[in-house]
Amino acid sequence: MKLLILNGPNLNLLGKREPEIYGSMSLQMLIDGLIARFPQHEIGHEQSNHEGQLIDLLHKADGRYDAVVFNPGAYAHTSLAIADAVRAISVPVIEVHISNIHAREEYRSFSYIAAAAAGVISGFGTESYALGIAAAENLVKNQ
Amino acid sequence: MKLLILNGPNLNLLGKREPEIYGSMSLQMLIDGLIARFPQHEIGHEQSNHEGQLIDLLHKADGRYDAVVFNPGAYAHTSLAIADAVRAISVPVIEVHISNIHAREEYRSFSYIAAAAAGVISGFGTESYALGIAAAENLVKNQ
Amino acid sequence: MKLLILNGPNLNLLGKREPEIYGSMSLQMLIDGLIARFPQHEIGHEQSNHEGQLIDLLHKADGRYDAVVFNPGAYAHTSLAIADAVRAISVPVIEVHISNIHAREEYRSFSYIAAAAAGVISGFGTESYALGIAAAENLVKNQ
Amino acid sequence: MKLLILNGPNLNLLGKREPEIYGSMSLQMLIDGLIARFPQHEIGHEQSNHEGQLIDLLHKADGRYDAVVFNPGAYAHTSLAIADAVRAISVPVIEVHISNIHAREEYRSFSYIAAAAAGVISGFGTESYALGIAAAENLVKNQ
Amino acid sequence: MKLLILNGPNLNLLGKREPEIYGSMSLQMLIDGLIARFPQHEIGHEQSNHEGQLIDLLHKADGRYDAVVFNPGAYAHTSLAIADAVRAISVPVIEVHISNIHAREEYRSFSYIAAAAAGVISGFGTESYALGIAAAENLVKNQ
Amino acid sequence: MKLLILNGPNLNLLGKREPEIYGSMSLQMLIDGLIARFPQHEIGHEQSNHEGQLIDLLHKADGRYDAVVFNPGAYAHTSLAIADAVRAISVPVIEVHISNIHAREEYRSFSYIAAAAAGVISGFGTESYALGIAAAENLVKNQ
Amino acid sequence: MKLLILNGPNLNLLGKREPEIYGSMSLQMLIDGLIARFPQHEIGHEQSNHEGQLIDLLHKADGRYDAVVFNPGAYAHTSLAIADAVRAISVPVIEVHISNIHAREEYRSFSYIAAAAAGVISGFGTESYALGIAAAENLVKNQ
Amino acid sequence: MKLLILNGPNLNLLGKREPEIYGSMSLQMLIDGLIARFPQHEIGHEQSNHEGQLIDLLHKADGRYDAVVFNPGAYAHTSLAIADAVRAISVPVIEVHISNIHAREEYRSFSYIAAAAAGVISGFGTESYALGIAAAENLVKNQ
Amino acid sequence: MKLLILNGPNLNLLGKREPEIYGSMSLQMLIDGLIARFPQHEIGHEQSNHEGQLIDLLHKADGRYDAVVFNPGAYAHTSLAIADAVRAISVPVIEVHISNIHAREEYRSFSYIAAAAAGVISGFGTESYALGIAAAENLVKNQ
Amino acid sequence: MKLLILNGPNLNLLGKREPEIYGSMSLQMLIDGLIARFPQHEIGHEQSNHEGQLIDLLHKADGRYDAVVFNPGAYAHTSLAIADAVRAISVPVIEVHISNIHAREEYRSFSYIAAAAAGVISGFGTESYALGIAAAENLVKNQ
Amino acid sequence: MKLLILNGPNLNLLGKREPEIYGSMSLQMLIDGLIARFPQHEIGHEQSNHEGQLIDLLHKADGRYDAVVFNPGAYAHTSLAIADAVRAISVPVIEVHISNIHAREEYRSFSYIAAAAAGVISGFGTESYALGIAAAENLVKNQ
Amino acid sequence: MKLLILNGPNLNLLGKREPEIYGSMSLQMLIDGLIARFPQHEIGHEQSNHEGQLIDLLHKADGRYDAVVFNPGAYAHTSLAIADAVRAISVPVIEVHISNIHAREEYRSFSYIAAAAAGVISGFGTESYALGIAAAENLVKNQ
Repeated sequence: MKLLILNGPNLNLLGKREPEIYGSMSLQMLIDGLIARFPQHEIGHEQSNHEGQLIDLLHKADGRYDAVVFNPGAYAHTSLAIADAVRAISVPVIEVHISNIHAREEYRSFSYIAAAAAGVISGFGTESYALGIAAAENLVKNQ
Repeated sequence: MKLLILNGPNLNLLGKREPEIYGSMSLQMLIDGLIARFPQHEIGHEQSNHEGQLIDLLHKADGRYDAVVFNPGAYAHTSLAIADAVRAISVPVIEVHISNIHAREEYRSFSYIAAAAAGVISGFGTESYALGIAAAENLVKNQ
Repeated sequence: MKLLILNGPNLNLLGKREPEIYGSMSLQMLIDGLIARFPQHEIGHEQSNHEGQLIDLLHKADGRYDAVVFNPGAYAHTSLAIADAVRAISVPVIEVHISNIHAREEYRSFSYIAAAAAGVISGFGTESYALGIAAAENLVKNQ
Repeated sequence: MKLLILNGPNLNLLGKREPEIYGSMSLQMLIDGLIARFPQHEIGHEQSNHEGQLIDLLHKADGRYDAVVFNPGAYAHTSLAIADAVRAISVPVIEVHISNIHAREEYRSFSYIAAAAAGVISGFGTESYALGIAAAENLVKNQ
Repeated sequence: MKLLILNGPNLNLLGKREPEIYGSMSLQMLIDGLIARFPQHEIGHEQSNHEGQLIDLLHKADGRYDAVVFNPGAYAHTSLAIADAVRAISVPVIEVHISNIHAREEYRSFSYIAAAAAGVISGFGTESYALGIAAAENLVKNQ
Repeated sequence: MKLLILNGPNLNLLGKREPEIYGSMSLQMLIDGLIARFPQHEIGHEQSNHEGQLIDLLHKADGRYDAVVFNPGAYAHTSLAIADAVRAISVPVIEVHISNIHAREEYRSFSYIAAAAAGVISGFGTESYALGIAAAENLVKNQ
Repeated sequence: MKLLILNGPNLNLLGKREPEIYGSMSLQMLIDGLIARFPQHEIGHEQSNHEGQLIDLLHKADGRYDAVVFNPGAYAHTSLAIADAVRAISVPVIEVHISNIHAREEYRSFSYIAAAAAGVISGFGTESYALGIAAAENLVKNQ
Repeated sequence: MKLLILNGPNLNLLGKREPEIYGSMSLQMLIDGLIARFPQHEIGHEQSNHEGQLIDLLHKADGRYDAVVFNPGAYAHTSLAIADAVRAISVPVIEVHISNIHAREEYRSFSYIAAAAAGVISGFGTESYALGIAAAENLVKNQ
Repeated sequence: MKLLILNGPNLNLLGKREPEIYGSMSLQMLIDGLIARFPQHEIGHEQSNHEGQLIDLLHKADGRYDAVVFNPGAYAHTSLAIADAVRAISVPVIEVHISNIHAREEYRSFSYIAAAAAGVISGFGTESYALGIAAAENLVKNQ
Repeated sequence: MKLLILNGPNLNLLGKREPEIYGSMSLQMLIDGLIARFPQHEIGHEQSNHEGQLIDLLHKADGRYDAVVFNPGAYAHTSLAIADAVRAISVPVIEVHISNIHAREEYRSFSYIAAAAAGVISGFGTESYALGIAAAENLVKNQ
Repeated sequence: MKLLILNGPNLNLLGKREPEIYGSMSLQMLIDGLIARFPQHEIGHEQSNHEGQLIDLLHKADGRYDAVVFNPGAYAHTSLAIADAVRAISVPVIEVHISNIHAREEYRSFSYIAAAAAGVISGFGTESYALGIAAAENLVKNQ
Repeated sequence: MKLLILNGPNLNLLGKREPEIYGSMSLQMLIDGLIARFPQHEIGHEQSNHEGQLIDLLHKADGRYDAVVFNPGAYAHTSLAIADAVRAISVPVIEVHISNIHAREEYRSFSYIAAAAAGVISGFGTESYALGIAAAENLVKNQ
């Protein structure tokens, strides 16, 4: 399976940013760990703080990857344009969040993107990504 | 790991109920499949249509199980009492949903229980349970 | 026609409870009167104050009855789980209310269950039940 | 019993208008059928697309009819003036709807007129009118 | 005075559940303490996590007790059916809460049951029950 | 001064309609009384239950009358089209209400028309009309 | 008739304050003009910027005056305590406003006090006071 | 192409009414100009201030015209009944507005009718009608 | 225990004001009764209709009293400044209400002050004060 | 006339993306068709998925183009910054949408940009662009 | 420059009140510090817990001071009357807050007074006052 | 002190854009003026219309600057992602606005970023930046 892990705004600071919420592992360590843990998949990674670039990356993923594990960060709650991009492509997108978005500020409980995604995994720390890959495996197998 | 799979209202009809949303596998087949797939865990199962009984079952799970994978069905959206029960016990509870609650009626996007749960997995069909068990494994390992 | 009359919370107190709203006829008298008035039908009756039990009773009615005339009482306004049960079964459910729910507190004008029911009859006192049976006759005849 | 069947906006197009919602029977056929089915009553019929004319017709019904079976169509949801007319007259008014107003767009679930009507019957197709006549019989008998 | 102390969901875990909010005294100790402190009254006690059972218990209290001191827990905020039960019986019901419901999450500040109760006492820890008994004494004396 | 008294829906039933709110004087008696009380003015009168006719009458009043004393009844709360008509003409319009619209249902406290009118007088029974004429006198004198 | 004209916050600045909204006549001139225009009445006048003092003045007016013409200024929209004072006394209170409160910011269209007042007159400039006195005359005459 | 231009409330005052918003061209001049500009089409015109009459005219247009260019004025924002009429007929209806409804009061940004119309053109002054005719040409050509 | 009973707006009219809600006992009688009933405490009393004066009195109570039993009347629902004063002092404040604030107008169910108070007692008539003193005894004893 | 056609997020996928909503013509074909159809105008074209780039492009269009026909896609509903850019430049901007934004999800019916644009055309498929050019011609001619 | 520093409710307790939010410097020390730091200005100071007195002080400042640096405390969020006073005077008023009102309870993020003030400075602790004086200097210099 | 002045969308047009709101000084002149006025600080400047670029610039400022004076323009009201970036870095960020955001459209009164910023200065024209620098000096000094 070819898989894209796509990370949205501020996730480049993972490990340094509010570690009591997001943990102390850096983004590079997280990705390296996932690649080591899932050697059977070809895993790509992209991160961007730009809404438009995330749309471009989703467009490019169409046809090149079998699934996208996507942590849209705060754009989950404000970007209808990214949600439209998820709808516009045919590759399945799995939304993941490190923190439990339901247990934080009220404006973090609504997600434009969740309504367009295949499914959502939220609250398991960085393990949310591994669960997202497991979910992707199952989705692709059953297509 | 000792694990309780707890199912809420109407899930006893799984396979017969709105199969275009919930699929055609029965609850018994689902549980049997999970037990076969995770032989390393001791898996218990309970289902109830009663809000109060689900609270009782959560109370009883405390101390007897290492984790609860809980599909609260429609009670996710209306039961503050079950959410209080999740907060009242020390065993971690993982909320799972078969359908993507963000892509249905608006009143299904808010969950009292999600704010009290360890994390939420929603939208992967019956595979949501298997992902929930994987999440539980990780939670228990890291305690 | 086999018909289940199903009554929700507090309707066991009919006749004693706020008679200026609900009238002074007891539930037993109401049911007996309906059985006498519709001798051509086989009429069953259940009442419960328990949300979960009402869900169980709806599940059991599936396949045993041709129609359900259901007064969900206050659960109409708070129970998404019962509404899901109505959607989960194939027997038609007709929602009836003794009082006119639109002419009372604002939170009584919304009904989760109405959106799932075949139709709604509200405000005709205990005659709402007889109208519900007449509606059921027509529904079953035209299936 | 002298009975007025009063129909509001767009019901003159019954049978032609969105038949998947409103059925394929014309208004004339519906009224003729009701007159044939209830020969014991003197049944009048009026239809208007004009909010003001419906108010006039309700005013004129006062003293001439024993009851009004009224399908206000979309005016149910927007006309406080018709609701005031229902309150201003002493003849009982029964609101009926062909479709289940609770199962459609959210702005169709609130009815100004329902709060002023004796009762409401909604969702039984054109049978809603016959149920409305039965309800009127009972109301008039018990006055 | 014959008095029923009625406790709703999760109060069976009192002392173990979130002790920083609810204190560390168990429910049994609380009830025993109240019985010892008010020897002049005949005090009964019931606890249930089931909405329907609480309705049944309120119905049964009618005629058997002079007053009910009722901590409905989270059902205060979600159960219109229990509020209807309080209205349906003639014995006065006093709502008590251990924590100050106005100082917690916003959805805990509205109470269906408060509008039906004789009065409300909230925020004094387990002493709220003793104040409820004192309020009941006064209500019964002045009937 | 040439003055039009314009009455909206259901005011033709004045005296018969909910007399505890609107009093027992008929519309004809009210108008006759005003003509007798203000002999110095040329007073015209129109009443209609039709939103469109009220718009037509406002259009026609432009250039023919010096002021309009207008009781729009329930259309105050639902008719943006009449409010636009008030804005479209140059003759001043004074909105009057028999009952105190602020002390009734919440949806009667908002008035589209009030925002377009010169001023509003509400709650003085039929005397509101006489106060409206006095207000009109002052407005015309100071133009 | 003994009449109190009561003015709320910022009305002491009348004539100087935002004259395009409130006109250029001072409060003293306004009161003197009213006294000259209504020589048949004994007219008292009080102004205060203090919510509590307005409550005190309303309390004192009870028994000493036959009616109060009250411009509560901005307190109309924020003071439930003054509204309670209006309800607590038996002398009728007529609310007047210089500007049309319905044609300004939305938070000026709701009035706590209007719901407690006998009636409301709004939008006729300083003439609103004279209309208020005329309304008071009529109210007192018909008591 | 046979085309009906249909105008709603207050548009008969075009040129006289608030010319800073609606311009100074009269309705007759507007229609004459459109007929001269589009000689290839057979253009009919109707205007009414009556909601009911607009419904009647839409019903009559069905089968007689190939398209309707409809400026519903303020009824766009308040008339669900006209929206139902647009849905009830098979001739395409194009909603046009002279002013930009999104740049005015908030209650002018929602349109019941827009959701039922083929498309909406708003804000181009009287040119909105010509654009509406061009849109109709295209719609009819592509049917 | 040194205790301040503090009363807010309109409570000086107790006994005269809306006796069907607030009873017929005067404030003086109420305070005298409480002093007689609790001779073991040194009870002070203050009443003011002024928001600012209530803030001053709360500030002065700090250090002079062991507890404050405070009926803020309507200021409960509108005064964030008094709530801040309650937060600013270290003496515990117990909010009491004569009527059941949850069973009246909706805007009386929210209380700024309740969120800052130690606890709330509402709906027991003037007995609410005695319960408030009992609550204060317990609070002070357990400090 | 020099004209810029500006397209927002996901419109680069036109023809491939949800063709049941957006049609099957590619963006290049659409632009080529418009250039061929309007040979009298000099037509430029830009597309970007980046909110910031769209702002840059609008800034650059000022002084270089006579008008902009702008399909902001989903940014219409979420980007106040683009709306400010439209206000910041002096070239007229015409907002166009392929689908009828009023007939889709509720969050698509509000447009920040519409309030800043000269006018809006929505719902005519790709023909909306041609209508936008016609509207631009008229706007520029009448400047 | 003559400058009035005006402080609203509870600020007399500065240094004692919730020091983790408002710091430990007393109001007297704060004012003395500002006078020492800005010897070039004539600085007056007033503090009141009374809404009405703050209105009086603003009225009196008109003509006597060149600018007012005003911390309205909680009245910012509830007092439309003070906002009207700010609008009624011609001396510029600068609103300052010690804490960041946007980072606290939601009801503290709206300010009636901010909309009437020249500008707002919030969140810099007691330094907000010094920044307010600097802002006043600039405003007065540029008048 | 090393200080970054960071400007968001449309501020590159300062001086040309809506000068009645934002003044006629260009951004370059503004920055040059600030550098001249605060020679003791090392002042950097960045402007971008791109949400993502502003996030990148905030990330880069961490460790390189002592403080950021940030005018986020319209992104204040729509960008949770920038607010998260402010929270993710340790350098203090001071939000400034040229216009008074509380006195404009309602959707400009809420700021995601304000809740994350150290403090907010709004409404003093371009002087807001100088006040922001003064605030930064104080913040850095007291760290």
